[in-house]
Amino acid sequence: MKKILFALFMLIQMNHANEGMWLIEQLPALNLPQAGLEISVEDIYNRDTPCLLDAIVNLGGATAEFVSSEGLLLTNHHVAYGGVQRASVQGVDYLTGGFLALSKTEELPAPGSYARVILEIRDVTAEILESVGNVKDLVERNRLIKYTIKILEDTIEAEDVDIEVKIASMYNGEQYILYKYKRFDDLRVVYMPPLSIGNYGADQDNWMWPRHTGDFAFLRVYMTPTGKGGEYSPDNIPYKPEKWLKIASTELRDGDFTFIIGYPGRTNRNRTSAAIKYHLNEIYPRNIVRYENTIRILDETTTRYPEATIKVSGMRKGRANYHKKTLGIISGMEAADFLAGQIALERELQEFILSKRKLRKKYAHLFTDIQEQFEYISQTLDHDKTLALFDYDAGIIPAAAKKILYTVLEREKPEADRDPGFSETEIERTSSRIKYRYLSFFEPADKELLKHALMVALSLDSTQRIAGLEFIRNQNSDQYIEELYGRTKMKDPDFVSNMFFLSSEELEALNDPIIQLFQKLYQEDENRREREERFKAELGELRRKYMTVLSAYKGFNVYPNANGTVRLTYGPVAGYSPRDAVYYKPFTKLSGVIAKDTGKPPFDMPVELRKLGEKKIYGQWFNPEMNDVPVAFTHQCDITNGNSGSPVLNAKGELLGIAFDGNYEALLSDWQYNPDIQRAISVDIRYVMFVTEQYAGAEYLLEEMGIK
Amino acid sequence: MKKILFALFMLIQMNHANEGMWLIEQLPALNLPQAGLEISVEDIYNRDTPCLLDAIVNLGGATAEFVSSEGLLLTNHHVAYGGVQRASVQGVDYLTGGFLALSKTEELPAPGSYARVILEIRDVTAEILESVGNVKDLVERNRLIKYTIKILEDTIEAEDVDIEVKIASMYNGEQYILYKYKRFDDLRVVYMPPLSIGNYGADQDNWMWPRHTGDFAFLRVYMTPTGKGGEYSPDNIPYKPEKWLKIASTELRDGDFTFIIGYPGRTNRNRTSAAIKYHLNEIYPRNIVRYENTIRILDETTTRYPEATIKVSGMRKGRANYHKKTLGIISGMEAADFLAGQIALERELQEFILSKRKLRKKYAHLFTDIQEQFEYISQTLDHDKTLALFDYDAGIIPAAAKKILYTVLEREKPEADRDPGFSETEIERTSSRIKYRYLSFFEPADKELLKHALMVALSLDSTQRIAGLEFIRNQNSDQYIEELYGRTKMKDPDFVSNMFFLSSEELEALNDPIIQLFQKLYQEDENRREREERFKAELGELRRKYMTVLSAYKGFNVYPNANGTVRLTYGPVAGYSPRDAVYYKPFTKLSGVIAKDTGKPPFDMPVELRKLGEKKIYGQWFNPEMNDVPVAFTHQCDITNGNSGSPVLNAKGELLGIAFDGNYEALLSDWQYNPDIQRAISVDIRYVMFVTEQYAGAEYLLEEMGIK
Repeated sequence: MKKILFALFMLIQMNHANEGMWLIEQLPALNLPQAGLEISVEDIYNRDTPCLLDAIVNLGGATAEFVSSEGLLLTNHHVAYGGVQRASVQGVDYLTGGFLALSKTEELPAPGSYARVILEIRDVTAEILESVGNVKDLVERNRLIKYTIKILEDTIEAEDVDIEVKIASMYNGEQYILYKYKRFDDLRVVYMPPLSIGNYGADQDNWMWPRHTGDFAFLRVYMTPTGKGGEYSPDNIPYKPEKWLKIASTELRDGDFTFIIGYPGRTNRNRTSAAIKYHLNEIYPRNIVRYENTIRILDETTTRYPEATIKVSGMRKGRANYHKKTLGIISGMEAADFLAGQIALERELQEFILSKRKLRKKYAHLFTDIQEQFEYISQTLDHDKTLALFDYDAGIIPAAAKKILYTVLEREKPEADRDPGFSETEIERTSSRIKYRYLSFFEPADKELLKHALMVALSLDSTQRIAGLEFIRNQNSDQYIEELYGRTKMKDPDFVSNMFFLSSEELEALNDPIIQLFQKLYQEDENRREREERFKAELGELRRKYMTVLSAYKGFNVYPNANGTVRLTYGPVAGYSPRDAVYYKPFTKLSGVIAKDTGKPPFDMPVELRKLGEKKIYGQWFNPEMNDVPVAFTHQCDITNGNSGSPVLNAKGELLGIAFDGNYEALLSDWQYNPDIQRAISVDIRYVMFVTEQYAGAEYLLEEMGIK
Repeated sequence: MKKILFALFMLIQMNHANEGMWLIEQLPALNLPQAGLEISVEDIYNRDTPCLLDAIVNLGGATAEFVSSEGLLLTNHHVAYGGVQRASVQGVDYLTGGFLALSKTEELPAPGSYARVILEIRDVTAEILESVGNVKDLVERNRLIKYTIKILEDTIEAEDVDIEVKIASMYNGEQYILYKYKRFDDLRVVYMPPLSIGNYGADQDNWMWPRHTGDFAFLRVYMTPTGKGGEYSPDNIPYKPEKWLKIASTELRDGDFTFIIGYPGRTNRNRTSAAIKYHLNEIYPRNIVRYENTIRILDETTTRYPEATIKVSGMRKGRANYHKKTLGIISGMEAADFLAGQIALERELQEFILSKRKLRKKYAHLFTDIQEQFEYISQTLDHDKTLALFDYDAGIIPAAAKKILYTVLEREKPEADRDPGFSETEIERTSSRIKYRYLSFFEPADKELLKHALMVALSLDSTQRIAGLEFIRNQNSDQYIEELYGRTKMKDPDFVSNMFFLSSEELEALNDPIIQLFQKLYQEDENRREREERFKAELGELRRKYMTVLSAYKGFNVYPNANGTVRLTYGPVAGYSPRDAVYYKPFTKLSGVIAKDTGKPPFDMPVELRKLGEKKIYGQWFNPEMNDVPVAFTHQCDITNGNSGSPVLNAKGELLGIAFDGNYEALLSDWQYNPDIQRAISVDIRYVMFVTEQYAGAEYLLEEMGIK
């Protein structure tokens, strides 16, 4: 780490202002007080006393924050969505009209939702890299690292039932950081606004600014009477967080300092032209086709079976979100001439390498080596991506069957060959959570998705074919799928949950036709996994080299790419100019919600909310300068997926709003930061409070949060 | 007029700031100096010495302005378009790549284009209304007025060959103003930028802001050696206008005073709810269908016969323009809840009427009377609008045949029954201009348009049928149309031109099948004309009453609706906010043209123009504050179709730009002025000069305009 810390102090000024998803340990180096922070960095994070970080929660990959001493959580409507969707599949639709608990006893369990609170952050680079020794083979080296990580994780997780540990690789394996969490599986819905507030504008406004979505929801975290996290139980009591956020007491204005702490999922900053080409030509086009097919199949299903709408809505929403995002990234790349820019940079870098004897020796072939890796993995891409279809997009039962078969066979391998990332704790977690997956199971959709995946396999070019599926060519596929679903016992989630612990012989003896289907694919899928493992290992090493060259040439952004670990980003409230003669102001208003209202989805605001605006019944949430209630705002924070639900904080560390989106013009931001147009989009806490108090009438929640 | 002038001083302050398309005679009452005008009102218009009005030209219904002492005219590209299109149909395409004359001898005749310069403006209300005497019947009264007008016009036109006179009714016949023009039919193209500048963005950007269209062209007006207007002759010499405009010498900025003088075509301000409903439910939907069908037929034709593209492009462009405009008006009405607002106003007015004894006696039934008129005309609307299809949208030969038959039969009627608006001068004008119409004639398009119109007629509901067309029901329509076009002699424009002067017997003796077709429709069309005449007369009277009531209740905007006569409008340069959190700045820039460039139509700017921008070769047209060349701007002037090509002038009366459009958000402006969002869109004179000098290299034109 010493080298990296040195780089940090040297190069931080080369970053764009406000660029960066910073590790919590990096905060002291950021000059946050100079940027506008009025509290101390220790108030945000320290090891010994309650700090802001204790109020930030990882909510199943996204983010949430405590806002009361009784475990009340604020997050996005779209983050709470999955739990409420799964709560609604039994008959009562809590999505369309929303849900409000008038007291704690009325709160609604949110099946499958879980929260993680950080207990400890620790650099474990030395321990991890020690295990590698002198091993040169990159695949072998990666396996050793994975194995060491798993042992360390398992050891600490054994301390208590609710401990979860994740060790994350930073800078392509230059650094390893351990995150120890306390995990809670009993989350309940307190207030979920109706779709017509929480998802106002839906797909049409998704990723767009100006925005008028009240994308928030209140949940509550419960623990056992003895203070452990765990599954739902009526005996559980509200969790008492070490720290919770105060609602901002001063008005937010254009230019004000803000910061965000949250869990950004994945970025591709500082990638090479080969990676860009690979995504533009191979990955994105395939993903777009996949998203479109899945959406189409789900839409056809709900047209025939309207009763399935809620069940498949989570999957549909996810695919639609990434579909629009991918199109945005592609147009962002085209608009910025991104590939050409990277190619030009690499030409400069190559000249630089060749001009220095030391560099020339080590890196002369760097770019062709990278190129070769992408060529290698691209050769089988149609084949491999079709196999990957069955992981998520070919129906819930097929995905479960594939996972079970893999688990059972992996467990019986000799230890040396076994996937080192494969622990018993994790198998148990997967098995126990399968029931939540099944809440979204709808047989006709499942069949159509599987049928589509099989058809894709059959349509592959002869060089890409999946041998294990060729037998279907001579069958009536409809009949075949009817038979699979007619004979399988895998429609029962409890039965499926137990299948994870069978031996391979027991599994075979079940004679389940869907398991049998995946037995035919198993070997080809193993080959795919090996190819991907090698690709990843080789590419990781090449990326480290690339960063060394880039750093030597011009310095580089010193924060690691997002990887689902907690990060801080900061920047002022700011509008932007998306194109010539157009300026987007940083705040939207309640009158703007009304102006978009057509009375029809996705712009069908509740009549009662409209009346409040028309009659100017604003409560204390009226802003005199705007002459209205603020709804959402844009600011120069550097976020991505996973930051959804993150708290937006002011200079005093008070809650200003909840981050929920980035703007369409800057979807390229996962690859490259652009300070002129990249903005975080957050719902304003004043709108959250206005809706909660004036529209929903949940004044008791405002009291719980210490307001009035 | 006394009453109106009184009303003017009383009510002018009730108008919105910058609302109004003012008559030239009204200027002294407008407090223009207070608004920012630095020259005197007499500099704009006076009867005795050269004034700005002498530099403003009516260009075939649109507007243009003199910019040199040698008759050099500036107007819009889309105004010059028709003439250049007709010049291009013989083989050389002057549209796509543009046209530049390097000297006067190279200038390109623009067939069918003509210009009118005002010689005199005179109030003739007394003379016109004298003729009415005590006649009570409204149809009879209107006929008398029309007759008196025509006699007065003809008398003055007889003074010289190039005199044209138009007497226009203002305020539904409260006032009549005579406009005496000198007319020029020899116009030549000096510089027409390529489509990729002059029509940059095409239909997609039409009516839109921010805009990057270089919508300008240079023409020149020619006269005979003895100083008369007339048709093209190689002996003609450039016209020497009394006055020409100077290019603005100071930089235009946000907030600066501007004014426009031009020829707005038609507005519907201060109309009743019955009129709004009639347009929303009857007129607009029918027009949209008509535009779409015509566009579709023309597109199908050019797909089959690409060589017809230029010939039909004028018609297509016109229909596409009104199609988008109509959709914009409808959404403007919906967004503003326009109908509901008018209904609410009328409810107030009705209460007001009933509360005053004097008003009650005269106006108690006003709104039901108006409603009845619209119901009356709506009864036969499918029938009547289908007959009207043959006037413009059923092909060029059918339109000519219909016009000829009507002319011939009208001329032979006893004087008392004859259409009083039907003068020999006008017949001669129509006859001599038919050749320009025929430059757009393309037989396959003509046949398809006629066939479509016949099919529309056959599809009418039984109550709306056109009896004269029922015979086609038993024919093979393709065969019938082939026969019509096979046998007709009307493909020869000279022959057609002479047909206007035949007697009905001679016409009959031609035995032309297309004339015979319209003979079958003649009587039904006569009935339609009578219905429309009555509707117009009754409605005119009711509108006068409505304006009296409205004026008594709350004052009204005192300028008459636009009617193709010259008007002045003024207001500052201003951006606007089209929706919550969005602000449109008032200037676009050359870098914005480049940002829109995709290399493909409609955004395919010329490579050489792009290079100028990229290399920052701006000449003197660079604006340091914008750090760029300004391209277009928005200002609060109140304009509509017909204002196209109008000069935008600064406080000193210098030329700032050329008006060419209104913004989409304010297309409702033809019905109602909205100062918050209605803006005129003008091409900035600095972009005109930059393109002319730096891109086209026509420095001699800048010298002719007195620049450098």
